[in-house]
Amino acid sequence: MILEMELKTTRFEVDGPIATLTLSRPERRNAWTGRMHTELRHLLQRADSDPEIRTVIITGANDDFCVGADSQALEGHLEKGGYDPGTSADIANPGYGVASEFDQNFAFMFGLNVTTIAAVNGAAAGVGLVLACYCDLRFASKHAKLTTAHGPLGLPAEFGLSWLLPRLIGLTRANDLLISSRVITAAETAGWGLFNEILESAELLPHAESYASELVARVSPSAQRMTKLQVYLDQHRDVGSAVAESERLLETAMVDPDYQEGVRALMERRPPRWN
Amino acid sequence: MILEMELKTTRFEVDGPIATLTLSRPERRNAWTGRMHTELRHLLQRADSDPEIRTVIITGANDDFCVGADSQALEGHLEKGGYDPGTSADIANPGYGVASEFDQNFAFMFGLNVTTIAAVNGAAAGVGLVLACYCDLRFASKHAKLTTAHGPLGLPAEFGLSWLLPRLIGLTRANDLLISSRVITAAETAGWGLFNEILESAELLPHAESYASELVARVSPSAQRMTKLQVYLDQHRDVGSAVAESERLLETAMVDPDYQEGVRALMERRPPRWN
Amino acid sequence: MILEMELKTTRFEVDGPIATLTLSRPERRNAWTGRMHTELRHLLQRADSDPEIRTVIITGANDDFCVGADSQALEGHLEKGGYDPGTSADIANPGYGVASEFDQNFAFMFGLNVTTIAAVNGAAAGVGLVLACYCDLRFASKHAKLTTAHGPLGLPAEFGLSWLLPRLIGLTRANDLLISSRVITAAETAGWGLFNEILESAELLPHAESYASELVARVSPSAQRMTKLQVYLDQHRDVGSAVAESERLLETAMVDPDYQEGVRALMERRPPRWN
Repeated sequence: MILEMELKTTRFEVDGPIATLTLSRPERRNAWTGRMHTELRHLLQRADSDPEIRTVIITGANDDFCVGADSQALEGHLEKGGYDPGTSADIANPGYGVASEFDQNFAFMFGLNVTTIAAVNGAAAGVGLVLACYCDLRFASKHAKLTTAHGPLGLPAEFGLSWLLPRLIGLTRANDLLISSRVITAAETAGWGLFNEILESAELLPHAESYASELVARVSPSAQRMTKLQVYLDQHRDVGSAVAESERLLETAMVDPDYQEGVRALMERRPPRWN
Repeated sequence: MILEMELKTTRFEVDGPIATLTLSRPERRNAWTGRMHTELRHLLQRADSDPEIRTVIITGANDDFCVGADSQALEGHLEKGGYDPGTSADIANPGYGVASEFDQNFAFMFGLNVTTIAAVNGAAAGVGLVLACYCDLRFASKHAKLTTAHGPLGLPAEFGLSWLLPRLIGLTRANDLLISSRVITAAETAGWGLFNEILESAELLPHAESYASELVARVSPSAQRMTKLQVYLDQHRDVGSAVAESERLLETAMVDPDYQEGVRALMERRPPRWN
Repeated sequence: MILEMELKTTRFEVDGPIATLTLSRPERRNAWTGRMHTELRHLLQRADSDPEIRTVIITGANDDFCVGADSQALEGHLEKGGYDPGTSADIANPGYGVASEFDQNFAFMFGLNVTTIAAVNGAAAGVGLVLACYCDLRFASKHAKLTTAHGPLGLPAEFGLSWLLPRLIGLTRANDLLISSRVITAAETAGWGLFNEILESAELLPHAESYASELVARVSPSAQRMTKLQVYLDQHRDVGSAVAESERLLETAMVDPDYQEGVRALMERRPPRWN
C-alpha cells in the first residue's frame, strides 16, 4: 500500500481511469524542485499501482507547464559547489525494475504501466521540457514557449534528452533545440512530430481528456500496457527480437479475457466492455 | 527452381523488372489468412530468385489493401485457445539467411534482393498495416483508412511494428497509432513521412509504377540491392561500422560491370543500359 | 601546433568564434577530390584545435555546394581497377580518438569540438550530400538540387549515409533518396526535417551566420561541446546510460566557471559573457 503524501507542489485528480497530475507552484511558474520531483514520483507510483488508473495527464497550473529548475536551486548549487537534486533516499521508484535500461531518472517513465500524456499548457523549459518529452503522448497550447535551457547555464543536455529528442523529431531538429537552447513556441514546431496536436489554449485540456477517454474505451487495459512497453524495449533491440517478442506476447494475450471480450465486441459490433 | 503454387488469395503480374503482387480476397476485403501469408512468401521468394525482377509493388484488390487478420481466424484462435498462424512448416523463407536480425516474420522483407513498394489503395488494418510498413517505400490513396487494430482486441503491437513505426515517423506519432489503435486516413498523415506520397485513388498505381520504372532505369541492379541491405543493417550497427562497410562495398563495386556502365553513361551523357 | 597548408580547393575565413569553410573548385562545380578532402580535414583540425573557434559554417563557392566526386576521379578508378581516395597517410584526423564509433571518414565530424553548420547554397550530390548530412545543422537554398548519386554509378550508399539519413528524416524518406538516387530540390524536402530552414539564396549565408552568432552568444562554450557529443554518443547507447551520463556531466559542469557565469547572467538579467 502506498501512503498518502502531503501535496505541496502538485495536484492530483482521478476521474475513473484517467488521472490528472498538475505541477503547481504558480508563484514560481511551476519551477522544478526536489519536492516537486518527489511528489511527481509518488503520484506516478500511486497511479501505477492502481489498476483502475490507465492514463495520467501531466499539466501545469495556470499559464505555465514548468519553467525548469527553480533559479533559487541553481544558486544553491553554486553556493554548495555541486549539484543537489533536493530529493531523499526514500523517493518513490515507479517504473523501476521493468528493464535495466529504464532504471534512471525520467527513463523510469518508460517502465510505467500507465500511459502518460503531457498537456503542455505554457512554458516548458529545461527539466520541464524533459518531463514533457518522456511522456508517451504530447499535446501543446500553440503559444507555449519551449527551450532546452541548459546551454545558457553551461550545462549538458539534461536527463538523456539528447537520447530522446532525436527519436521524437530527428537529429537535425533535435540538434537545433539541444545545441542552441533557443526559445521557440509550440506553434513553430508544427509538422515536426514533437506534439501529437497543437491547439488553442482553451482546447488543450479538453482535447487531452477526450483523447484519453477514447483511448481507454477503445483499447484493452492489457494491450495498452503491453504496447507501451514494447515500443520502448524495441528501441533497445533488433528487429527480429522485436518480432519474436511480439509473437510470444500474442500467444499469451490470446488466452487473456481481454482478447475474448475484444473478439466478441467485434463480432457483435458493439463497444468492448473492459474489466 | 521454385515450383508454381496455385494462387487462391493473391495475384501476381510481372512486367519486365517490375512485379505487382495483389492481395486478393475481395469478398473478405483482402483479410489476412494463413493461405495469403503462404502465397505472399511464395511470390516474394519467386520474385527474389528471379534476376530479372527488381521491384515488387504490393497492393490490394478492389478498394482495400488488407483489413487485417480475418475475423473468422480471430474466432478460431478463441475456440482453439491459442494463436494459429494457419501456415505449415514448408512455407517459403525468402530473405532469410541474410542477417540473423531479419530471420523472422515480416523482418525477412529487409533481407530481400528486390525493393518492395506498398501501394496502399484502401483500408490497411492490423497485419495489413504491418505489411505496408515493412515495404521499403510506401504510396497511399488519400482516403485509405489506417489502424493498428491490435488494441481493441487486447493484443500486443503486431510483428515488431513497435520497432518499425518509430523509425518511420518518430516516437510521438508512433505511440499515437500504436497505443490508441485509432483509425486515421492516409491524408491525415500528410507530412509525417509515413508515405512517400499520398495521392488520389486513380493516380496511386500509375504513380507507383512510374516511380518503379524510373528507379530501375536510373539505378543499377547491384546498387539497388546493396543500398537496401545497407539501410537495414545500419539500423543495427554503429556509425563507424556503417562507414567502414560502405567503403568495403565501394571497393568491390568498382570492379563490377555496373560501375563501368555507370561511369560511361555519365561521360557519354546518355541513360545507362543495365544488364 | 598545426602547420599552415596551401589552400588550393577551399577557402577559410575566421570571424571571431565563427569560421567559414568554403569548398572552392568553381570550374568543376566544387567537385570532391582527394585534395579537397585533405584540405577539409586540415581546416577542421585547425578550427577544432583553436579554442576561439566554436562553429564552422561549411558552404560552396559560387552556385554549387559540392557536386560529388570529380568525374575525372571516377574514370581514374575505372582505369586503375579500384577505388583511390586520393589522400595520403598524413591526412589530418580531427575528431578522432573521441569514441571508437566515430573513427572513420565523415563519422569523425561527430567527434569535433566545434559545431558544424552546412549552408547548402546549390547542388549537393553524392559525397557533397554526405558532407552536408554529417554537419550538426543544415540550412539550404530552396533551389539547391540534392541527390545521393551512387545508384546510377552502380555504387553502394556512400560513407554511412544509409546509417545517418534515416536518423535525420525517417526510413521512408531516406529509402526514397538512398534507393532511387533521384534528384530533388531542397524546397521539395520542406517539412522533412532534413534542413533546419530552407531559404532564398540571398538569405542563406546571412541566416547561417546570424544563427551561429546567436548560438555562440547564448550558449556557453562548454555546453555547446558537451551537448553535441552527448547527442551522437546517445545514438549508440541505451536511454538509462544516456541519463546516467548526463547526470555525471552535470556534476562536473556545476563546478565550471561557465555555470557560475550562466547563473549570474540569469540572476542579473543580462547576456552572459563567456570566456
